[in-house]
Amino acid sequence: MKVCIIGCGAIGSLYAAHLGKLDDVEVWAYDLNQAHVDAINENGLRLTGLSDFTSKINARSSVDEIPECDFGIIATKTMFTHSAMEAVVPIFKNGAVCSVQNGIGSEEIVAEYVSKVIQGTIFPAGHITEPGVVNHDAGGKTWIGPFATNPASMKEVEQLADAINRSGMECLAMEDARGAQWTKVIFNAASNAVASMTRLPHGVNCDQPEVRKLMSVIMAEGIAVAEALGITLDSDPEALTDFGREKAYYHPPSMLQDVMAERQTEVDVLNGGIASYGKELGIPCPMNEAMTALIKGLEFSWSLEIPEKH
Amino acid sequence: MKVCIIGCGAIGSLYAAHLGKLDDVEVWAYDLNQAHVDAINENGLRLTGLSDFTSKINARSSVDEIPECDFGIIATKTMFTHSAMEAVVPIFKNGAVCSVQNGIGSEEIVAEYVSKVIQGTIFPAGHITEPGVVNHDAGGKTWIGPFATNPASMKEVEQLADAINRSGMECLAMEDARGAQWTKVIFNAASNAVASMTRLPHGVNCDQPEVRKLMSVIMAEGIAVAEALGITLDSDPEALTDFGREKAYYHPPSMLQDVMAERQTEVDVLNGGIASYGKELGIPCPMNEAMTALIKGLEFSWSLEIPEKH
Repeated sequence: MKVCIIGCGAIGSLYAAHLGKLDDVEVWAYDLNQAHVDAINENGLRLTGLSDFTSKINARSSVDEIPECDFGIIATKTMFTHSAMEAVVPIFKNGAVCSVQNGIGSEEIVAEYVSKVIQGTIFPAGHITEPGVVNHDAGGKTWIGPFATNPASMKEVEQLADAINRSGMECLAMEDARGAQWTKVIFNAASNAVASMTRLPHGVNCDQPEVRKLMSVIMAEGIAVAEALGITLDSDPEALTDFGREKAYYHPPSMLQDVMAERQTEVDVLNGGIASYGKELGIPCPMNEAMTALIKGLEFSWSLEIPEKH
Repeated sequence: MKVCIIGCGAIGSLYAAHLGKLDDVEVWAYDLNQAHVDAINENGLRLTGLSDFTSKINARSSVDEIPECDFGIIATKTMFTHSAMEAVVPIFKNGAVCSVQNGIGSEEIVAEYVSKVIQGTIFPAGHITEPGVVNHDAGGKTWIGPFATNPASMKEVEQLADAINRSGMECLAMEDARGAQWTKVIFNAASNAVASMTRLPHGVNCDQPEVRKLMSVIMAEGIAVAEALGITLDSDPEALTDFGREKAYYHPPSMLQDVMAERQTEVDVLNGGIASYGKELGIPCPMNEAMTALIKGLEFSWSLEIPEKH
């Protein structure tokens, strides 16, 4: 079985390295970070932190050099989904592509390019420490299931889940993986947006009573939207928020990391995604709209040139 | 007539320099910025920008050296109202003190120290360019009136307004100056809080449709609170917002200036003031509460020390 990781950054590398341990899986990685690609091909892909091993995989920055694959796992930042899928279309003529990206809306984009789509939600986290080396920051499950409009078959979902499980990461194959996705999106929308504005780590935000209350307001809107969509949440996003406080008190949510680095954030697929479903369904989401507006405004400030004399 | 400016920074200096031009007014200034005080005493207080003149006034960093005064104009940042009033009490045994500070709640503090209080709302703006020199950035009216609990007499209010008018700044004496105050507070709560988060100038914020919409949500809450208080607004905060866009497109609202300098902001007397009146009156102010929580959180981030290994 051939698998191609599309976007082999922090998250993609966790899956690539684990799957690379299996004898019956040939792992390819498509990534535009040439230094990372070269380091992987030269020394293997190394995981540190929660994991500690090096895996031989085939990394390429050009799709032409990658064979047709049975499965894709797309792990790019959400704003690169379109361009990445456009590039990899030739290697998924018959393959199924699974999104393990943040937020809502990526599967819809993947479905514009391939006919078999798997929707995924994941808890593992990591960060690249140097080319070819990724620190495995957090463990946790991966939930995958056929995506509504262009579903991969349940057999394919199970086949991918089996490989991920055998590789040492826990993966659940589900008929309907939307509950897991929305639970995580609602939690992430609150923890990430608020942290981007206060610039405080997640646990510290939880300990500011007014900030914690605001997280609840943001989550309540998301819960109402999920309900209107007929989705049964996997678990309570409020509990997840408090669990995050226990487990990763000083963790800067990824959107805060983006803000500090003045990189475009994923707010469009988190708070923006919730707000846009809310608008469609007539569920008011003023707080998710507000957070989206503020974070998009902040992103705009990074490129704004203010004329002299002002 | 003797007037003491309490806090002779950007705003205080505008009043001090103007009043210093009048032969029948003796102007004193109490300020803790020793370099500014020394420069004023040595070379006079100079205004540039919209104004262009130098005024001889008496600046002191010790209250002991200031005589009893008929009027005080307090222009400190709101978090210094308590300490400044405590210091100047001896020179206002019979004097009336007028607050020209931002937001809601300063007059209540002034009233803890003196029996005759005037509430003021102002549009003029400036910034210190070097010790002894203040740039007059924006003009506009000053509205003053007796403060509810410890009111100065209308005669005193008119006497102060007359001096300010003769000095070249436009001042209106009103029986009830709350309408002007709340109009400006509501406008400021929206423009300042939003700018602190997006880090964009006021006019640029106005041109982001979603951000401008958020300003309206923040203002609508303030308008509802003012209504519940029985206050008739002076003008429409929405119109003021658009007027600000026309007049000062690239102006960074003062709270954004504070955020960029990592200085404590005045959010407590703007969004926080509106939210706290709203709570008392049963008017929901979720967006003003949210902005207060986020900005207080951001302030906290500036002093947070994150342990190593995180």
